[in-house]
Amino acid sequence: MIETPYLLFLGDAPDRLAAKVAQGIRDWRPDNAVGQFRLPGCNADMGLPDMTLEEAKSAGVKTLVIGVANRGGVIAESWKAVLKDALAQGFDVASGLHNLLRDEPELVAAAKEHGRALHDVRVPTVRYPIADGKKRGGKRCLAVGTDCSVGKMYTALAMDMEMKKRGLKSSFRATGQTGILVTGEGVPLDAVIADFMAGAVEWLTPDNELDHWDHIEGQGSLFHVSYSGVTMALIHGGQPDALILCHEPTRTHMRGLPDYDLPTLEQLRDTVLPLARIANPAVQVTGISVNTAALGDDEAELLLREIEDRMGLPTVDPYRHGAERLVDALPA
Amino acid sequence: MIETPYLLFLGDAPDRLAAKVAQGIRDWRPDNAVGQFRLPGCNADMGLPDMTLEEAKSAGVKTLVIGVANRGGVIAESWKAVLKDALAQGFDVASGLHNLLRDEPELVAAAKEHGRALHDVRVPTVRYPIADGKKRGGKRCLAVGTDCSVGKMYTALAMDMEMKKRGLKSSFRATGQTGILVTGEGVPLDAVIADFMAGAVEWLTPDNELDHWDHIEGQGSLFHVSYSGVTMALIHGGQPDALILCHEPTRTHMRGLPDYDLPTLEQLRDTVLPLARIANPAVQVTGISVNTAALGDDEAELLLREIEDRMGLPTVDPYRHGAERLVDALPA
Repeated sequence: MIETPYLLFLGDAPDRLAAKVAQGIRDWRPDNAVGQFRLPGCNADMGLPDMTLEEAKSAGVKTLVIGVANRGGVIAESWKAVLKDALAQGFDVASGLHNLLRDEPELVAAAKEHGRALHDVRVPTVRYPIADGKKRGGKRCLAVGTDCSVGKMYTALAMDMEMKKRGLKSSFRATGQTGILVTGEGVPLDAVIADFMAGAVEWLTPDNELDHWDHIEGQGSLFHVSYSGVTMALIHGGQPDALILCHEPTRTHMRGLPDYDLPTLEQLRDTVLPLARIANPAVQVTGISVNTAALGDDEAELLLREIEDRMGLPTVDPYRHGAERLVDALPA
Repeated sequence: MIETPYLLFLGDAPDRLAAKVAQGIRDWRPDNAVGQFRLPGCNADMGLPDMTLEEAKSAGVKTLVIGVANRGGVIAESWKAVLKDALAQGFDVASGLHNLLRDEPELVAAAKEHGRALHDVRVPTVRYPIADGKKRGGKRCLAVGTDCSVGKMYTALAMDMEMKKRGLKSSFRATGQTGILVTGEGVPLDAVIADFMAGAVEWLTPDNELDHWDHIEGQGSLFHVSYSGVTMALIHGGQPDALILCHEPTRTHMRGLPDYDLPTLEQLRDTVLPLARIANPAVQVTGISVNTAALGDDEAELLLREIEDRMGLPTVDPYRHGAERLVDALPA
């Protein structure tokens, strides 16, 4: 568990896209984001107050979160001085970079000297159990995609936010780096040992009140041969009651696999349902989430209506139109 | 790669079942098994010459393989003296136990002193790539099961042996501890990090001559919620041309999951085929392997004939009747 609130470190991010993690925190847990820290040359702006470490301290910040990724995921030399300073001033530091904080001797020494924590959210810190498949109380919704990176995390976060807005019981359950930094906890599923993947998902989505919903962040795709095993573990460990199909309509092939076509939404539905029924015979596909970022307003609306008619399921772009209809469609 | 041939260490195995690993090596790589080493109280017998370490040395043995598992998979104190002796006399030591050789300071010290290797086959030693899904030359056969522990390894080994007997190009590709100790190499798939599972299978079954067959050891089951992700990675990383359905007809529920029924062979076929087609559109289910160990001769024959009629596929128990018909049915 990472202590909140955060100061978002944007470093020398060349653009907004490089600060995707900071953007996620800003969008989904604005209360956690007190300010931003930028180095000379930074072109990203979260619209938060720029703060020195001293100002952040006075504002109650507990953790400096690296909200930027550069090529290769390394910790730049220019960043290290700030990170060491932050540790010296009593902040923890959290990162989802490939280059681990714990592999930087200077940072390890500073953290030790000042009694602070380094959080590398790519590395599991829990000894997860082997899945036992026992039925758990409460409800679970899992976003599954026709491909990787089609908006599964966004969909789950939007549904969680909508349920909370309505005063309903809801948790977002993070399974990736960004999600974990957004919420401060979760399971870095792609870094878990094969035998314990499904058990890690069971651990992440435990027994709960009968009217509580977990919105589980999806990973990979059953149709993406590099990561389909991770997706499978989410489907069986998560034993979802509801599935949301996620899609990006302009993609021409599976991400990183030029020889692989995307499945249709019908293929995804017909493939995932029988597999999900193994863990939960009552599971239903309840909605469709389409990432229409690449389309104009009219084009997007036309496409959503076409898919909704074809599939007979509420179809929205939660970024454009909110997740109300996806939440409305969840079973009681 | 573990150096052969082996001396099989049976320790104080209370019965034959406890020496399953030794039995596997004895059955499938008899040329690798020069002798056995037994402690007082051992009730297992591989029918190999009992040898002292000195005799094994003269016979050309390179590695002492722990062929026995006791409850909990620990390395008994009574074994350690022998293992240390073996290292001192110039043998490597290999083990598939949970209790790692490398976690025993006395053994580590002895190995270092005498320049010998400790092989813990449960631990991956390779940095596997992320799967790229590229089509590889050569043919691949994967055994998939209605449940765990239904004879998938045995089926793959029997098919490999039959092909070699016919002078055909064939490799058994081990994905579990016993298989790795049998062949001296492989991937301990259940211990691989989630993101690299499918890539590890691609690495294990590389591009090959067009008429070469890999017989890939299966793991888990698509219907076993604890391990289905591992099975999925084998199906997509292995991009099999042929699938063999494996079944144990007397099981009353999924192994370790009392609330989960076994699927029928039809369900397994209809579930695995569309998933396997994602990686290889030409994949076929070519045969069925039934573990009839719990049945009498007549009962077994009746059952095999009934399944064969029902499914329209060659159906054998390779342990009882050999794998000839499974090999005959592989596509050209």
